[in-house]
Amino acid sequence: MSERKLTSSVDMKARQRAVEMVRRRFLEIVEKVLRGEEPRMLIPKRTLSNTIYDKDRKLLLLGSEVFDRSFLDVREARKFMQTVLMASIIYEALVNNEYPTIRDLYYRGKHTIKYRDHRGRAVEENTWDEQRESDAVLRDIEVFVGLLREEMLILSKEKGKVVGDMRIRSGDDVIDLSKMGHGAYAIEPTPDLIEFIDVNAEFVLVVEKDAVFQQLHRAGFWKKYRAILITSAGQPDRATRRFVRRLNEELGLPIYVLTDADPYGWYIYSVFKIGSITLSYESERLATPNAKFLGVSMTDIFGDPETKKKPYLTETERKNFIIKAKKTDIKRAQELMNYEWFKTPKWIKEINIFLKKQSKLEIEALAGKGLKFLMDVYIPSKIQTQDFID
Amino acid sequence: MSERKLTSSVDMKARQRAVEMVRRRFLEIVEKVLRGEEPRMLIPKRTLSNTIYDKDRKLLLLGSEVFDRSFLDVREARKFMQTVLMASIIYEALVNNEYPTIRDLYYRGKHTIKYRDHRGRAVEENTWDEQRESDAVLRDIEVFVGLLREEMLILSKEKGKVVGDMRIRSGDDVIDLSKMGHGAYAIEPTPDLIEFIDVNAEFVLVVEKDAVFQQLHRAGFWKKYRAILITSAGQPDRATRRFVRRLNEELGLPIYVLTDADPYGWYIYSVFKIGSITLSYESERLATPNAKFLGVSMTDIFGDPETKKKPYLTETERKNFIIKAKKTDIKRAQELMNYEWFKTPKWIKEINIFLKKQSKLEIEALAGKGLKFLMDVYIPSKIQTQDFID
Repeated sequence: MSERKLTSSVDMKARQRAVEMVRRRFLEIVEKVLRGEEPRMLIPKRTLSNTIYDKDRKLLLLGSEVFDRSFLDVREARKFMQTVLMASIIYEALVNNEYPTIRDLYYRGKHTIKYRDHRGRAVEENTWDEQRESDAVLRDIEVFVGLLREEMLILSKEKGKVVGDMRIRSGDDVIDLSKMGHGAYAIEPTPDLIEFIDVNAEFVLVVEKDAVFQQLHRAGFWKKYRAILITSAGQPDRATRRFVRRLNEELGLPIYVLTDADPYGWYIYSVFKIGSITLSYESERLATPNAKFLGVSMTDIFGDPETKKKPYLTETERKNFIIKAKKTDIKRAQELMNYEWFKTPKWIKEINIFLKKQSKLEIEALAGKGLKFLMDVYIPSKIQTQDFID
Repeated sequence: MSERKLTSSVDMKARQRAVEMVRRRFLEIVEKVLRGEEPRMLIPKRTLSNTIYDKDRKLLLLGSEVFDRSFLDVREARKFMQTVLMASIIYEALVNNEYPTIRDLYYRGKHTIKYRDHRGRAVEENTWDEQRESDAVLRDIEVFVGLLREEMLILSKEKGKVVGDMRIRSGDDVIDLSKMGHGAYAIEPTPDLIEFIDVNAEFVLVVEKDAVFQQLHRAGFWKKYRAILITSAGQPDRATRRFVRRLNEELGLPIYVLTDADPYGWYIYSVFKIGSITLSYESERLATPNAKFLGVSMTDIFGDPETKKKPYLTETERKNFIIKAKKTDIKRAQELMNYEWFKTPKWIKEINIFLKKQSKLEIEALAGKGLKFLMDVYIPSKIQTQDFID
């Protein structure tokens, strides 16, 4: 079978584009060397101090600081070498029709360089020792070239799943996401290559837990409420985040996120909405600033005297379902309070109730009250009454 | 939309069968009570001492020991109550068209029973406090009724994915597993309800790591080598194991398992092949005694002077790719040596090389040598020369 048939035409196009961009960017450095100039790269800084929360766009973004990675600077020479090494590995993989992962980029580049120093002594130095180092260099290349790793056909494991009344094109296939039976469609690691063909849905429900996704899917939630149903299976990976963002941005679908009522669940929501600090340079494409936190919220559990909101749980149910918060949960909640995007009145209330009650609740407790309660009472009424946190 | 259309006709049939079996089994107990007899259940013991390794069938199986759970035995009364409670929750869920998970079965049953003891004192007792307790009771019901939890439409999270030239029916849909684009088909939690329609493949390759699955899928491995490609994404869950078993048993496809070269990878293989001790009562349906360990093996890394096998790695590659084993790895390897099914000459050799070299290797290191090496050299030549461990 020819290689042409083995890989998709979509990948071939993406590959050509990435080859061109990586080549052009690093050719500049080669040309500098040929002109007798000092080879250097200006790379946007990915430090915390250069990570800015844009209040209007509600996104974590990179600031304007750049650092000058110069080959002739002793402090930068090793990093310079690593960057050029990584770029050459990525380039090789692209032209050779390979699909590396960040783990094998690490292996591909890992070796010992033997050389004589300026005093003539034999020296041995490893290109890198740990994946932490090669990952950091890869991030530098992403911002330097202006391509996400996925656009360079670097793959990764992928947990996200989707079902719903929607047709997409992935690779050379058209996939009907409403015809997955009891199973689901596992999202590809390169969701920018997906083409949305048509969609018949009113909103997107993102569920933290795979098991709850299975229940809602099987009971026909997405059919009954015209939803696209997604699970991140825990902390969302990049592909799931990008896929959700595209559903919101390109199809205009509202995004509701359903997690456990605890600081870990809030953080999952926050990664969907704002981005994570280590990946701030990608937030602009991965985060969904419009995403709403549907629940489970503390006021769903305890009610809210201020707004006269009644709780969804009875006192007996609270007694049976609530889990006592651990010290790590409390600590996590206190950390989240310091983030700019958790300083809204609704979030402050949410976190304060948590700190006062020291209680958390799993989504499964609502399914324990009855899947029909979760599917036909809780979720629809939360959406209808707009009882979410933005 | 009617409930009929929301859930699949396949589920409705499975539900009716389960309702009937649960009802019949527990009706026997009710009838005993009505006849004035002592209510009791004879349940096969799920203890280690009653878990037997069947050398001929190469399976972990339950032995013939049963215990007598009697309502009037003070030591058993609490367990009896829990068992009847769990059975009634499962029954309710079945007739109400619900799809519980083991986590919400725990929540559904969790409450406090208030009663007066024989001295007239008010006593409070929780049905159960931890999921460990409700899970144990669920297992008792599985062996007592003779139905796996999946057959009672109890769902769970599910990590397994599959692609390949194969058509299946799941729920009311026909799914072409060769038309998944760059994504994959996420296997349903109830794989016994899948119907195999037709298949065009010569073997099944099960890959431990999702990222390696993504690479092989994207490079067209399954097309080129006529394989069904599966990932368990780490430790396999029940559904992935059952799906693999069915591919072997019903379609006669050989199963090759590809994991990291370390005791954790060996254990993953062993769960596919033999079963796990806590789930021995299900091995008969979940395990695949014919599954072969394709690699990565210690002799792939170091070669084997005895058989004159050459290693797949050069000395430089070994230096760059090998990871030093940790104490926990060594301990794990020593434990595995005690298992009956690791006492074959090939496994003893494998574990001894590991203990001597104290080295492990990830599959990604082979992809680091080039995806084409992994795909077009390593895997095909291992299969062709039958260089696997049985």
